[in-house]
Amino acid sequence: MEKKCIEVCFSPALYQYKSLSKNYIVVLVDVLRATTAICAAFENEVEAIIPVAGIEKAKEFKNQGFLVAAERDGIKLEFADFGNSPFNFQKEIVKGKTIAYSTTNGTQALAMVNDARVVIGAFSNLNALSHWIAQQKQDVLILCAGWKNKFNLEDSLFAGALAYKLINSFDYSTNCDSAHASIDIWHAAKDNLIEYARKCAHLERLRKFMLDDVFEFCFTLDTTECIPMLMDGKLKNIV
Amino acid sequence: MEKKCIEVCFSPALYQYKSLSKNYIVVLVDVLRATTAICAAFENEVEAIIPVAGIEKAKEFKNQGFLVAAERDGIKLEFADFGNSPFNFQKEIVKGKTIAYSTTNGTQALAMVNDARVVIGAFSNLNALSHWIAQQKQDVLILCAGWKNKFNLEDSLFAGALAYKLINSFDYSTNCDSAHASIDIWHAAKDNLIEYARKCAHLERLRKFMLDDVFEFCFTLDTTECIPMLMDGKLKNIV
Repeated sequence: MEKKCIEVCFSPALYQYKSLSKNYIVVLVDVLRATTAICAAFENEVEAIIPVAGIEKAKEFKNQGFLVAAERDGIKLEFADFGNSPFNFQKEIVKGKTIAYSTTNGTQALAMVNDARVVIGAFSNLNALSHWIAQQKQDVLILCAGWKNKFNLEDSLFAGALAYKLINSFDYSTNCDSAHASIDIWHAAKDNLIEYARKCAHLERLRKFMLDDVFEFCFTLDTTECIPMLMDGKLKNIV
Repeated sequence: MEKKCIEVCFSPALYQYKSLSKNYIVVLVDVLRATTAICAAFENEVEAIIPVAGIEKAKEFKNQGFLVAAERDGIKLEFADFGNSPFNFQKEIVKGKTIAYSTTNGTQALAMVNDARVVIGAFSNLNALSHWIAQQKQDVLILCAGWKNKFNLEDSLFAGALAYKLINSFDYSTNCDSAHASIDIWHAAKDNLIEYARKCAHLERLRKFMLDDVFEFCFTLDTTECIPMLMDGKLKNIV
């Protein structure tokens, strides 16, 4: 059987230059903290999450009575019920609910993908996600949300972890330079992931606003089996 | 003394999102093959190189009697005297001459920098360049020319090599995620650089057109002491 391909895109600004053009799956990654929070929400049995790119749109959902998670630059927006700490999405708050969710990078990146199935990736669901992808037998593009279109270390690390798993345990290969680079970064980090991740520039931003309590959780592997997938404008758990 | 900063930009498409904003030096890198060829030309005593972004403009220089080096996707353009193999820029051909030069990625990237001093970097001048930069006591942005705005491995490897040298031997530091990543890639590669570099997607393109004869030369360190700098629209050797 011919191996399926992996491509890594280090920033939403580079998505337009991707090589894959049809019948591929996009894995959206925003480790600190949006996609980690989304995985936590589904682990805590949220019904659905509606990604919302704009702030005004998020306000509308609030006015319609939805729970709204919304932040910019890490800080919760005033009208929102909470920001994007994975610790906000507790079972007693989210179970059975539909939440509208708007973040600095993650939901913006999501809005630009309109030609592929999109699933959510984080260290939280790395193992489950890799097994699910392997069953699909489709090419995969790992899209790093980055930081305001810049490359970031945490999303690239995850890209490397996922690419390495798909190549070593399943029928995947890559001829994508970004994928090769991300695997090298993962190898440099994997034996001491949390210590390595302290280099991430975004940790400084979180610290400044005392939002770094979730830092270690965001680099903890396999806390959930959930695979959130975008369907008809809503994220839903498909497993 | 406060340490100077290093920033790495993995693609021209990410240059607009850079953090450095004033009084910095840009090191332009296009290892396969433009900046390696430029270093070779200055080692062979070319007088000056005029970077030309557009093909029509390159033709004009040809009509004015200049030697013209011009390629697209690795292939020499028909009207040009040669393409961008470093082996084209032999001393008997280039010594004392001014050459107009247009390439797929390198000269396009050069055209977008208008707010900083620009020097040319390649493995060919790594050591000389790092010493020259250290004397300037200015922040440095390493701009990878990439491949049609995509990340590439060869330019990122060079960025890591230069960043590592500046941090370990001179008064430089970084809080740039791309710089950290490039250093990890460099560490993964450095003990067996040419073998590692065979992963580069661009090698396949060069092979297809039998242009890969220069591959090993492009990853050979310190074949020149030249530092080509852009001055009044021309590259000149400043040492």
